[in-house]
Amino acid sequence: MNAATSPLLTDLYQLSMLQAYRDQGMDGIAVFEFFVRKLPAGRNFLVAAGLEQVLDFLENLRFSADELFWLADCGRFRRDFVDELAALRFAGEVDAMPEGTPFFADEPILRVVATLPQAQLVETRIINLLQFQTLVASKAARCVLAAPGKLLVDFGLRRAHGAEAGLLSARASYLAGFGGTSNVLAGKRWEVPLFGTMAHSFIEAHDDEMAAFAHFAHSHPRANTMLIDTYDTEAAAAQLVPLAARLAQEGIAIQAVRIDSGDLGAHARRVRAILDGGGLGSVDIFASGNLDEFRLRDLVAAGAPIDGFGVGTRMNTSADQPYLDCAYKLQEYAGRPRRKRSEGKATWPGRKQVYRSVDAAARFVADLLTTADDAQPGEALLQPMMRAGRRLAPSPQLTQVRDYAAAQLARLPPALRSLDAAPAYPIAVSARLRELAQAVDRQQRQAS
Amino acid sequence: MNAATSPLLTDLYQLSMLQAYRDQGMDGIAVFEFFVRKLPAGRNFLVAAGLEQVLDFLENLRFSADELFWLADCGRFRRDFVDELAALRFAGEVDAMPEGTPFFADEPILRVVATLPQAQLVETRIINLLQFQTLVASKAARCVLAAPGKLLVDFGLRRAHGAEAGLLSARASYLAGFGGTSNVLAGKRWEVPLFGTMAHSFIEAHDDEMAAFAHFAHSHPRANTMLIDTYDTEAAAAQLVPLAARLAQEGIAIQAVRIDSGDLGAHARRVRAILDGGGLGSVDIFASGNLDEFRLRDLVAAGAPIDGFGVGTRMNTSADQPYLDCAYKLQEYAGRPRRKRSEGKATWPGRKQVYRSVDAAARFVADLLTTADDAQPGEALLQPMMRAGRRLAPSPQLTQVRDYAAAQLARLPPALRSLDAAPAYPIAVSARLRELAQAVDRQQRQAS
Repeated sequence: MNAATSPLLTDLYQLSMLQAYRDQGMDGIAVFEFFVRKLPAGRNFLVAAGLEQVLDFLENLRFSADELFWLADCGRFRRDFVDELAALRFAGEVDAMPEGTPFFADEPILRVVATLPQAQLVETRIINLLQFQTLVASKAARCVLAAPGKLLVDFGLRRAHGAEAGLLSARASYLAGFGGTSNVLAGKRWEVPLFGTMAHSFIEAHDDEMAAFAHFAHSHPRANTMLIDTYDTEAAAAQLVPLAARLAQEGIAIQAVRIDSGDLGAHARRVRAILDGGGLGSVDIFASGNLDEFRLRDLVAAGAPIDGFGVGTRMNTSADQPYLDCAYKLQEYAGRPRRKRSEGKATWPGRKQVYRSVDAAARFVADLLTTADDAQPGEALLQPMMRAGRRLAPSPQLTQVRDYAAAQLARLPPALRSLDAAPAYPIAVSARLRELAQAVDRQQRQAS
Repeated sequence: MNAATSPLLTDLYQLSMLQAYRDQGMDGIAVFEFFVRKLPAGRNFLVAAGLEQVLDFLENLRFSADELFWLADCGRFRRDFVDELAALRFAGEVDAMPEGTPFFADEPILRVVATLPQAQLVETRIINLLQFQTLVASKAARCVLAAPGKLLVDFGLRRAHGAEAGLLSARASYLAGFGGTSNVLAGKRWEVPLFGTMAHSFIEAHDDEMAAFAHFAHSHPRANTMLIDTYDTEAAAAQLVPLAARLAQEGIAIQAVRIDSGDLGAHARRVRAILDGGGLGSVDIFASGNLDEFRLRDLVAAGAPIDGFGVGTRMNTSADQPYLDCAYKLQEYAGRPRRKRSEGKATWPGRKQVYRSVDAAARFVADLLTTADDAQPGEALLQPMMRAGRRLAPSPQLTQVRDYAAAQLARLPPALRSLDAAPAYPIAVSARLRELAQAVDRQQRQAS
C-alpha cells in the first residue's frame, strides 16, 4: 500500500459527507478554490508549487479492491455507498497558476470544478500537496534571493517530516532555484542534480583523517568533496595540500572541501588562504550546518569565500513558518455562489481569476482579484490545466518550471525580493466581486 | 515506486561512502547511535517513537532491479559496486528504547551494530523516521498532559508535510495519548480510532443549514457531529433544539456539535447553555481551530464546557519546534571507540546504555549514561530489538505501546509534566564513559 496514492489518505469526514451527498442526490457541479488566507509573518510573497502532484493524484484517483473491502467492513458506511465508490474517478476541471508563480493572500492558486462528491473527496490531499510544496518553494526562493550566484543544495532529507516530505522538498527547492539535492530518489524521479560529500563517520571509521581522504579520492576520482571539520578544520586543510600533490601525480584532483561546524565564514577565510597558499585555488569551499536565508545573507554580505551551501532542516521544514494558513473552499454549488462567513474566516465567493498588471519592464505592479467571467487587462494567472479529468497538455519538465520560476522571481518588485518585511504587494478586489459577496450574504440571510 | 521503502531515499553520500568502504575492504563491525543533542526550547522531555518503522525498514531493505539499473546508469558508481548492492541486506543488531519511553538530551534511543556499509547506508532513513515521530509524539504528549481526561483527535493531515507525515503523525499522536485521528488510512493501517464531523462545504452546499444537519443525521444516524459555526454559532445551536426533537421521533440522536472559529471557550459556554436548555444535555461539544497545548491548557483552566478537541497543524508539524537537533553517530568501528570532536558537536564514544533510577513510587529520579558493559542499578532503557536483521519478537500492538507511554508519562517528575520549562532532569555521565572519551581523544591526537 502506497500512502501517497491511496484515496484513504483523507479525513474521515470526506467519506461521511460523500455518503450523505449520495443519499440526497447532491451530485451537482461544485467549485472549490485553494488559497492562502494570510502570508506568514516575514514572507513578502509565496511561490506556487505542488500542482504536478495534484494533477497526478486526480488522474489516478480510484479505490482499490482492498480499500473498498475495508470500507465496507469498517462499520461506518453502507454497502450501497461503498459499492458506488468503486466506480469513482475524478472527471472534473482544474485551473491553476503554473508552478513557480509568485502569489499573495486571498488569491486562488487552484480551482477545481467537478461534481460535488469528486471535488469534496480530494480536498484533504490537495491541501496536503499544495501547502507543503508551496511552503518549501517559498522558503527556498528566499534562500536563493539571499545568496545570488551561489550553489545551494538541499541537504534536508533526514530531518524532513517523513519520506514524501524529503522527496517533495527536494523537488520544491530545486524548482525555486536550488542547484540540486543530496536526495538520491529525487534525482532518480525528477532528474534533480545530485550532490554529495562524505559524513564524519567516514573520517572516524578510519584511524587517520588523510588516509580517509585518499581512500575517498581513489574511489571517486572525479567527484569528491572532503569533509574537513571532524577534528581541526584548518589542520585538515593544511594537510590536504601535500595530499593533493600526491593525488595529482595519479591524475586525481580534489574538487572541494566541506566545513560543517563552527564559524563558517571565519573557517572559510582561513581555509581559503591555506588552500590558495598551497596552490589549491581551484578547490571549492562548501559549507553546511544550520543554514537558512538569514545566515546565507550574512555570510554573503561578509564576503565569506564559500562557493556553495548545503541547506537542510530549516529550509525543508520551513522552520520559522512550518505551515500556511490555507484553505480549499466551496465557492459555488449547482450554479449558485457560496460563501463561508465564520468569524475571521470569511471568503470571497464564486469562481475567481487573478489579473496581474506589469510595468514597461514587465515587472509586477499590482493584482486584481475578480470573478472568472470578468475579463480585465493584465496577465490572467489561473490557466486551464485539466478537463474531464485529464491534463490538457503534458506537464512541463522540472527544469522548465525552474526557469519559469526564476524569471517570475526576477519580475517581483525589488522590495519584495528582500528578506525584510516589505509593504504588502497591492491587491485590489473588483467591485464585481464585492457585489457578488454582498448578494450571497443577502441570499443567505433570507434563507436562514 | 514507493518512496517510503526505497533504499534510494537516502543521501547521495551514503552510497559514495559505501563504494569507498568496499574499495578498502572496510566491512568491519560499526556501532552507530541515534540521540538528540539538546532538547528543544520549552520541552522538558521527549517521547521515543518511530522504532516500529525503523525495524520494518531494516527487515525489508533491498535494492530493486529498477533501482540497481538506475544506479549503474547514473554515471556515479562503478558497475562492480552496484552489482554487489543487489545482495545487500541488513543483517545487524538493533537495541532501542521501547516506543513511548521518555528520554533526554545525549541519551541514545537506538543503537545499530552491523557491518560498516549496512550501518552507514541506513543513516538517513533512520534519522528521518525517528526524529519525526519522536517530534510529534513529544508535542502530542504535551497536549495530552495539558487536557487531562479530554478526548484529543488528530486533525492535521491536510497541513502535515506530505503523505507519510500525515500518516505517521496520526500514529505518533495516538501512541502519545490522543484518542484517535481523522486520517482514514491510519485507521486502516494501525486501527487508530477514527473520528470525523463535517466540513463547512457540506453546510454551504445546502441552501439551508438545518436541512444540511438533517440530511447528515439521516445518512449517519449513529455517528454525527454537526458543525455549527458556518454562519452564526449560537443561532445554529438554537435551531438544533427543535431539529433534534424531530429527529428523535425517527430514533435518531444528535451526538455532538463542533465549533471551529471565534472564541472557542465563550462559544462553548453559550452553546452548552442553549443545548442544556433545550434538553440536549447529552450532546457533546467538540472544538477545533489553531489548537496547541497552550490553548488547550487555557481552555481547560477556564472551565470551558468542551468534551473533545480536534488538534491539527500545530501538533503534527510541531509548529513551535519543527525539528530536533539529533544525530546518528559512529561510536565504534572495528572494536575501537570513535568520537566526533567538531566544535559544539562532540559526542560520547562507544556503545552506551542508559540506566534510570526510580523512587519508591516508581517515579523517575535520575538517569545515568554509561558504557554498555557497565552494569548499574536501575532500569536499562536500551533493550534488544533485532538480531541478525530480524526482530527478536513480534512488535507490540499500537494500543499496548499507547498504554506503556501513558504509564511512562505518569512516572515523570511532576515538574517535567508541566508545560512550563522545568529544571533539567538529572542525567549523570559515568566516570567510565568520561575515561573512555579521554582515551579516544588521546588516541586520536597520537594518530594525527
